[in-house]
Amino acid sequence: MLTSEQLDRVVVVLVRARNPNNIGAVARAMHDFGFRHLRVVNDYAVPFHTAKSAVDASAVLASSIEAGSIADAVADCTLVIGTTAVGARTINHPLHALPHAATLIHRDIAQSGARVALLFGSEKTGLSNDELSHCTWLLTIPMRPRPMQSCEDSRHLSMNLGQAAAVCLFELVRNDQVAPITTPPPQAEAGDLERLTTLLTNVLERTGYTTRHPASCQPARIRRLIRRMGVEQEDAPVWMGILRQILWKLGKTVKDND
Amino acid sequence: MLTSEQLDRVVVVLVRARNPNNIGAVARAMHDFGFRHLRVVNDYAVPFHTAKSAVDASAVLASSIEAGSIADAVADCTLVIGTTAVGARTINHPLHALPHAATLIHRDIAQSGARVALLFGSEKTGLSNDELSHCTWLLTIPMRPRPMQSCEDSRHLSMNLGQAAAVCLFELVRNDQVAPITTPPPQAEAGDLERLTTLLTNVLERTGYTTRHPASCQPARIRRLIRRMGVEQEDAPVWMGILRQILWKLGKTVKDND
Repeated sequence: MLTSEQLDRVVVVLVRARNPNNIGAVARAMHDFGFRHLRVVNDYAVPFHTAKSAVDASAVLASSIEAGSIADAVADCTLVIGTTAVGARTINHPLHALPHAATLIHRDIAQSGARVALLFGSEKTGLSNDELSHCTWLLTIPMRPRPMQSCEDSRHLSMNLGQAAAVCLFELVRNDQVAPITTPPPQAEAGDLERLTTLLTNVLERTGYTTRHPASCQPARIRRLIRRMGVEQEDAPVWMGILRQILWKLGKTVKDND
Repeated sequence: MLTSEQLDRVVVVLVRARNPNNIGAVARAMHDFGFRHLRVVNDYAVPFHTAKSAVDASAVLASSIEAGSIADAVADCTLVIGTTAVGARTINHPLHALPHAATLIHRDIAQSGARVALLFGSEKTGLSNDELSHCTWLLTIPMRPRPMQSCEDSRHLSMNLGQAAAVCLFELVRNDQVAPITTPPPQAEAGDLERLTTLLTNVLERTGYTTRHPASCQPARIRRLIRRMGVEQEDAPVWMGILRQILWKLGKTVKDND
């Protein structure tokens, strides 16, 4: 059973939601199940503003905030989870089915005080691989589409946004979580992971690694490499210090050479 | 795990649904989770016909049928379950929270071959007491509305119809989805971790980090730092390549300086 204080450590992030009704539906499901923090990342502000000004806009929507980027929206979170219908593409992250995912989220919230971001992508395309690269791991709602005589339904590879959010959020408050075995240590916040990503990128560029291994140095691959490190909170400043020292030394020697 | 044949013994019955989009959303959730039998009871036929003729109508909707009354819609069912948000009224039926209700439904389907009707009422009023009187027992989705500063939300005593259906139907198919989908990736061998430890130690020495932070650079601490990275097998050569490139660049510049 999550306490109210623990529910408040779950942040729902909508990325590029197009339909104001869907944004409203997500806010309503959040309200129904006791979640309060909604953040919206949209290049295009109209759907969010339309949803927010709707007559029946919920208090969740009223207090929701607009973020300039996914990195901003999740900067204070220690666990960033992307929702995906998977589909045909290759997934480069650990992927958990919803019930197991909820168990993992409970464990992190209850035992290590994690702040969790749950990302939902746009209605049409879901989250892109680049957007998924911000995530620690991914969650999918297992579906069972079945062939029907009219087989047009095979195109429905993803759930409706409002329904997917309702199913995920209910699972989080559903309350029969499996007892955890070990206490995981607190994980680094996403903002720190992004800083580490930037520092490592600089190191790779400055050492010539990027030139020798361009395929390994695509931004999303470096971001995922850092996320796979599972950096603990107390190790984040250590790794940043190490990378900064490397940059300082490289800078110094380059200058010395000049 | 319900077999396909067992899923086909679940019938969703919508009573007085007003919004064609909601009827479509229920059909979509049914499709997503493998249910096929939708029956609609409406005094007023327009919403159902509008939903059925929508461009993106699902195969579930195409094969759905209109019933003249609740009695007709559930006539071939052995277990009739009404969904309700309860609210302020007195309930004269056994009432079960969704997770327990799903267990009871599974048992009846698996053990007694029941055909089950799951009734959802209108968006505004839910199922009336008269409509509930057709039911064997009732199901409610436990909600957790919380006071907010803008307290208008207290009027939301019921869930959105499409979301309620999605949550209920997922619960019916969720039971054996608790295992993780992806197996954890193979971890690096200890030999590789030790090689990484040595390489990182060299980097720390060569950059002057060891001199500035001697306490952090005791061999055992560096070894633990690397172990906490949780390096995956396929990432080990990447990290070794990065560290070697840093050393090569540092060596080159140091030599250049000599």
